Amino acid sequence: MGDERGEGMGGGQVAADELRLLIERAERLEEEKKGISEDIKDVFAEAKGRGYDPKSIKTVMAIRKKKREQYQEEQSILEVYMQALGML
Amino acid sequence: MGDERGEGMGGGQVAADELRLLIERAERLEEEKKGISEDIKDVFAEAKGRGYDPKSIKTVMAIRKKKREQYQEEQSILEVYMQALGML
Amino acid sequence: MGDERGEGMGGGQVAADELRLLIERAERLEEEKKGISEDIKDVFAEAKGRGYDPKSIKTVMAIRKKKREQYQEEQSILEVYMQALGML
Amino acid sequence: MGDERGEGMGGGQVAADELRLLIERAERLEEEKKGISEDIKDVFAEAKGRGYDPKSIKTVMAIRKKKREQYQEEQSILEVYMQALGML
Repeated sequence: MGDERGEGMGGGQVAADELRLLIERAERLEEEKKGISEDIKDVFAEAKGRGYDPKSIKTVMAIRKKKREQYQEEQSILEVYMQALGML
Repeated sequence: MGDERGEGMGGGQVAADELRLLIERAERLEEEKKGISEDIKDVFAEAKGRGYDPKSIKTVMAIRKKKREQYQEEQSILEVYMQALGML
Repeated sequence: MGDERGEGMGGGQVAADELRLLIERAERLEEEKKGISEDIKDVFAEAKGRGYDPKSIKTVMAIRKKKREQYQEEQSILEVYMQALGML
Repeated sequence: MGDERGEGMGGGQVAADELRLLIERAERLEEEKKGISEDIKDVFAEAKGRGYDPKSIKTVMAIRKKKREQYQEEQSILEVYMQALGML
């Protein structure tokens, strides 16, 4: 019985270590992610400090992610809608 | 002591009712909000069904929220940036 | 040609009205949703004013959405994990 | 005038490079952040594969971020509220 209990505790110990390691890995990664989010904020703060408009930079970045044709098609649909609504 | 206890229970009862009413009010409002979110989805689904592009409609709606001058200024900054980056 | 143009404009006019109506419906719903979000904030502000903790109320509301067994199972898993990590 | 124009273009060129560098830095950081988000997902997928409940692990991680007293106070408020509402 002592043995069984020993095994049981051993098994529990191993699982506890496994769980702890998984959680510590996730926590380290969350920390890194937070650090990078701060670095990104710093880039935009620096851009702002140099006279750029952070919001417009973000828009440019969103456009850069798109294929040129996709962007052009979106722009032309937008124009049709704005024209129809008397916004242009 | 019986009185004190009575008061205590009475007080607790009143607070419990107060708390319950607050929570039920918040829950009803959350339900309403969820219903409206579904109505909004329905409008966009209907727009899509009629051949409109929901994403472009959302962009139009975002532009409509802005003052005309603000939008024009944003657009001109965006153009300067895109020109500088050879995107136009 | 004048006729064709007339038809074209007519068709365009109808579509513009359809688009405008869809957008105005979506905007009204967005307004309603915003109003309800403010009502929800008001309930929590009132709760806070009466000495309740808004964050705990939100937790209670999240628990109330769950089935009792589901909540109990989640709690027992959480306890096992916290025990394993020496948090209890 | 040629000189002024030269300076103007030169100035524009420098600004374009500066803007491009800022954007490329932000984009690299966004890429890194995305990579880390995927690594975090991988940890939870691995945990799930080993029989752990990812959602409970996230709860444990949220609790670990809190000071012990803060967590205990939150738990005791929650208990009072759940008691008052007949949830315990």
